[in-house]
Parts: sequence; structure tokens; C-alpha cells
Amino acid sequence: MTVETARFELFSFWRTSATYRVRVAFNLKGVAPREHNVDLDAAEQRSAAFLKINPMGAIPALIDHAEGQSREPLTQSLAMLEFLEETYPQPPLLPADAHGRARVRSLACLLAADTHPLIVPRVKKYLMSKGGFDDAAWRDWQTHWFTLGLHAFEQRLVSESGTGRFCHGDTPTLADICLASILVVMRVFKIEVADIPTAKRIMANCEQLDAFIKAEPRRQAGAPSEAS
Amino acid sequence: MTVETARFELFSFWRTSATYRVRVAFNLKGVAPREHNVDLDAAEQRSAAFLKINPMGAIPALIDHAEGQSREPLTQSLAMLEFLEETYPQPPLLPADAHGRARVRSLACLLAADTHPLIVPRVKKYLMSKGGFDDAAWRDWQTHWFTLGLHAFEQRLVSESGTGRFCHGDTPTLADICLASILVVMRVFKIEVADIPTAKRIMANCEQLDAFIKAEPRRQAGAPSEAS
Repeated sequence: MTVETARFELFSFWRTSATYRVRVAFNLKGVAPREHNVDLDAAEQRSAAFLKINPMGAIPALIDHAEGQSREPLTQSLAMLEFLEETYPQPPLLPADAHGRARVRSLACLLAADTHPLIVPRVKKYLMSKGGFDDAAWRDWQTHWFTLGLHAFEQRLVSESGTGRFCHGDTPTLADICLASILVVMRVFKIEVADIPTAKRIMANCEQLDAFIKAEPRRQAGAPSEAS
Repeated sequence: MTVETARFELFSFWRTSATYRVRVAFNLKGVAPREHNVDLDAAEQRSAAFLKINPMGAIPALIDHAEGQSREPLTQSLAMLEFLEETYPQPPLLPADAHGRARVRSLACLLAADTHPLIVPRVKKYLMSKGGFDDAAWRDWQTHWFTLGLHAFEQRLVSESGTGRFCHGDTPTLADICLASILVVMRVFKIEVADIPTAKRIMANCEQLDAFIKAEPRRQAGAPSEAS
């Protein structure tokens, strides 16, 4: 179903949660960007070649080669998800009603805005270099914020009426994409959070879909083999 | 111009950046919610009364009393801004074109998602209680992330073609609301960031508008007098 397209170039890294979100959304929309691996472990995002593409040195970055468009990259995964939703409305990744959309965006932000920014590499770098953190303290920090975010998310899934087979109703939305983006990264880091049965049930439903399976970090160019 | 309405109840706290964003958006749309001060310094967000309204114990929370709507609160400021934009399209706070909207949302996320979540009270609590931070280390942390976020924002304002009298074109958008929400909170904390002339020019333009002036933290119910 996915159509290879010359329209989009996606600059990404196999492991990052934000790139995974964009990759899943592209897959759900049936559109395939040309994806370029930017090796964050080798600081390629700071290379002269990449800074020409995105002066901010951040991934994911998306170039739209549609005629008449500027080549300024689209950045920030949540903004890119909204862009894809507007550009390819089918299948919809937001509900039809304004309250439903607000709920889905709120669930997405709970993980992508309130939780994920706390566990990114630049925060690790600060805490290890200036905050006196060692590896164990960093792992406690990661675990604390993943747990807090996912327990709040679980509480909402259980108590709110919109929850269905997926976070909102019976088809995947931006909320499922953000949930899955946190859970796949926790697997990479081998971090577990207990007592999130609804989130795990929904993740299992996501992982029956090709769009999520094909976006898995370990399946991407640049990923180390499972043994490493 | 602002019309008092019985439709919305906004649960807020005078000082928080996220509440300020929602307050400015309501003002720009010319809609006045009934606002209730939830005193975070007195942990009122954990009171039984407030947990009945929002079981997550988080502000801002917005109740929509429109007929036929559930009384589940709308949460997360970015989701609430999108909801207000959909519900009251005039004046628009997002550009008409998809690339413009992506740019505005990306600028908004750069501050509201990538920067602000790092300096909120729960992060302070963790770093002071488990991270060995003292007041000076916390202030360094706040200053570091405000500086990083605002310098990245400034670089984009200077280098990207969409910047005008405001962050995108000549009328305020969600990006200006998020920029102002960071700058007003820095004033409360008396933190300065140098070398952001474009951001400061745009903030000065925002502060010529009643919608921003009336949303100022110090003007809200529950705010201490300037002398404190």
C-alpha cells in the first residue's frame, strides 16, 4: 500500500522517539519519504553537510520537494504529524469532533511534550557533566519520568470515556503514535514500567499494524544488531 | 470587545506559563472564561474538590459547558490552543497555508514542548530532593534551558523567511503566545537571556495588545503584590 514518493526527504536517526512518530504517521498515510540516517552517536547532526539542510542541527527534519515550496525544513515531530494529517487527510489520525481532537492532542502532549523532553540526550549530558549524575542516577531519572508520564496516561485511558481499541476509539490516532514512541524507546533502554495494562493492550493492538511494525527502531538503517 | 461567557470555566494559577498561553488565546478570540485560581503553592491542585474536576490534578484545565458536551476537562495548553482555534476561527492564530501552520506549530513546540517542561515545579522537586541540587544549581539549570531554547528560537526568527512583525507574518499566532509565555515567566523568576533582539522586538509588539497585557501573571487573582 505504501507508495514510494519523491516529494519528501526525512532526516532521522534509528533510535529517536520523535523520528519514530513521524515514520509511523507516514506509514499510516501510505506515503514513503526518502529517509536519511543522521548518526547522532557520531554527532553527524552537527556536521557542515547537515547544518546546510537544517541550521538547527536537530532531527527529525523533513524537506518537502513539492513545487513552489520553500526548502526550509519542517521540524518538531508534533508539528510534522499535524502537517501530514492536513496534507494527507486519509486515513484520519485525529477524530472528527473538536472535543475528540482536543483529547487526542492532550494525550499526545502528555507524553511527547511533558515526558519525552526530560529524557533526551542533551538533558543527560547536562546532568552527567554539571549535575553530578552517574549512570545509575540517570537511569533512576529516566525511569521516574517514564513512570510518572505513563501512569498519568494509564489513569486517563481507564477513566475517560473516549478510550477504545486504541487510545481514542477503534482506529489509531496521534495519541497512539506518541504512546508507542515512548514504549519502543523504553525497550531500547531496557526500562520497564509496571501497572499500565491499558497502555500495553493498546500497544499490542498498534503492533498488529504494519505501519507500527515497519517503524520499529531496530529495523531502521543505522541500528546496531540485536546482540549489541 | 471581550464577551463574558458562561460556556467555559478555566482552572488556572496566576504564575504558570501554560495557563498564560490559554488566557492570551481566549483574549485574542474575544471570549472570557470564568477563571478559578487553583493555588499551587498551597497544593490546592491535590485537594479533593479539584480532583473531582480534574482527576489528574493538573492545571490548566478547561470545562466546556456547551450543551451535549461531556464534562471531562480539556487539558494540556497546546491542545487547548488548537481547540480554541477550531471553535473560534476568528481572528486566526494559525496561518492559512499548511507549511505556515507547520512552522508556527514547530516554533510553539520548540518552547512549549522542548523547553518549558524542563523548568516546571515537579522537575525542581526531583532535582532538589534526589539530584543534590541547591537553589543556585536550580537557577543555573533554569537559565541554561531558557537560554538554549530562546537562542534556538532567535536563530530561527532571524534565518527563516516567515518572520514579520510577529513570529510568523504581521499578526499574532500560537508561536507568539508560546514565546510570550516563556518571557513572562522569566520575569517572574527574574532570569535574563542575552542576545535575543528579534524575540524581544516581537514581545514588545505583543505587549501593545490588550490580549497579552490583560493575561500578565502579576495582574491575575492570587498574584502577590509586586513588592513581594
